[in-house]
Amino acid sequence: MSVLIVGSTALDSIKTPKAENPRLLGGSASHAAVAASFFAPVKLVGVVGQDFPKRYIELYRRHKVDLEGLQVLPGKTFHWSGEYEINMNNRRTLATELGVFETFNPRLPAAYQDSSFVLLANIAPSLQSHVLTQMRRPKFVVADTMDLWLNIALPDLLKLLKRVDGFVLNDSEARQLTKEDNLLTALKKIHKLGPKYVIIKKGEHGAILSTRNGGLFLSPAYPLHRVVDPTGAGDSFVGGMMGYLSTAKGSLDDNIRKGMIYGSVVASFCCEGFGLKFTTRITRRAIDDRFKELDKLTRF
Amino acid sequence: MSVLIVGSTALDSIKTPKAENPRLLGGSASHAAVAASFFAPVKLVGVVGQDFPKRYIELYRRHKVDLEGLQVLPGKTFHWSGEYEINMNNRRTLATELGVFETFNPRLPAAYQDSSFVLLANIAPSLQSHVLTQMRRPKFVVADTMDLWLNIALPDLLKLLKRVDGFVLNDSEARQLTKEDNLLTALKKIHKLGPKYVIIKKGEHGAILSTRNGGLFLSPAYPLHRVVDPTGAGDSFVGGMMGYLSTAKGSLDDNIRKGMIYGSVVASFCCEGFGLKFTTRITRRAIDDRFKELDKLTRF
Repeated sequence: MSVLIVGSTALDSIKTPKAENPRLLGGSASHAAVAASFFAPVKLVGVVGQDFPKRYIELYRRHKVDLEGLQVLPGKTFHWSGEYEINMNNRRTLATELGVFETFNPRLPAAYQDSSFVLLANIAPSLQSHVLTQMRRPKFVVADTMDLWLNIALPDLLKLLKRVDGFVLNDSEARQLTKEDNLLTALKKIHKLGPKYVIIKKGEHGAILSTRNGGLFLSPAYPLHRVVDPTGAGDSFVGGMMGYLSTAKGSLDDNIRKGMIYGSVVASFCCEGFGLKFTTRITRRAIDDRFKELDKLTRF
Repeated sequence: MSVLIVGSTALDSIKTPKAENPRLLGGSASHAAVAASFFAPVKLVGVVGQDFPKRYIELYRRHKVDLEGLQVLPGKTFHWSGEYEINMNNRRTLATELGVFETFNPRLPAAYQDSSFVLLANIAPSLQSHVLTQMRRPKFVVADTMDLWLNIALPDLLKLLKRVDGFVLNDSEARQLTKEDNLLTALKKIHKLGPKYVIIKKGEHGAILSTRNGGLFLSPAYPLHRVVDPTGAGDSFVGGMMGYLSTAKGSLDDNIRKGMIYGSVVASFCCEGFGLKFTTRITRRAIDDRFKELDKLTRF
């Protein structure tokens, strides 16, 4: 089965204390799509401008990403530039040029509307809802988000949360959304907003899954000797997870833990290079090796 | 087998945003001894003043802690008072009155000198070394420390590290000691200082074990709905681990992961009450239940 992924498709200019990389392929949908592509075929919904480099279209194609849902419009591609501090945990946005993304109206090709696994990667929650409305009977819908939408589009996000099966956010966003410092209490509050599965990402400290019946899973992060650029790690995590889930046999409850581990593994590779540079070089075999290694690193 | 534990035995006055608790039983050795007592008999080396409440002596006795090594001297017991901020992660010391601890000269009773498992809980590294010098042939010696000793007694600490099998410190101390931000790199550097086993504690994010041959273990923390007082959690962790290890059959390398999980479990109970209030109320059965639960929370 394939995964439908909607989100941002962008050019990222990323500065770290050690290097500067202009106009890398970025955006939540790009990271998630490449991550998912190691497990399943991907249908991408997004928008780019006429300046979008051909080499990035070819990159998507090499990863067998279906581009029927990628609109190419007159104007400029969404461009984000940001800078990381020395410890790679704090970043600040230097500039955001929305370009064609400003008027993005995601439209699903007919062939996309029957997709069973849907990842609403980080974009405005109204657009995430708009995509969902065009779907027939998706089996498993997961939404990701960011602090920006909590600040400027909370009512839209709350509406969306009633319609999704799973919701992914990071620890500071969970605290902001629920006004709760304790993450277990925050998880309970988020279930009440709708989603049966809630995942709180904690960066280098892994992630916690909570299911509505009270089940918890502590997912480790793969320990890295060097973090080059964490941009897109969260998108890679949820993309890898959804890619795995769309092809796994058996029940979701049985598979979602393995899915999170696969997601963590792809996210770890993502952090080892700028943008998608490292992720696009790995193989399914390297992913499986690191999956097994994480198993060994956590057994007791 | 029993565990010999040397460290501070203190009275702690702890303030949190919700409550104030004066003159609780505290100190690294007290927390570690009670934690270890669930697994093995404990021999305590420490010092208290004549003001030390009898009820705390009785508390040690209820936990079958051998007190032959506890000196009771004229003067006042070491008294620490501190205050936690609302998120319970940051604390500041309000006052430290060393009392009889200022001239503490740990002396081992003859019956202690043959101990196989030795925990040098957090005190000045010169005192930790002094204890070690009085031992015959310990099988497994672990030292804990704190940032204070990195600041004022680094040469002593470095001397000690050449003589211990295991070393436990928290993430910020590891970064301070090695001047490395990345914990895997920090672990490698710490092995070069002597210890074969290095454990970096990360509070609510668990702990990492590194063995000199490159083995790693990611130990989870037990997730809590409410943290009442984290004082002594790190001491409980290493105490529980050493207690378990001293009675476990088989090789250390086979047992140390389980030991860390037991340590995490006791540390989690410690955080649920002020001082030792909660830890002293639990049973070995409650510990085993939470151990099994941590297994379920991390399996994939």
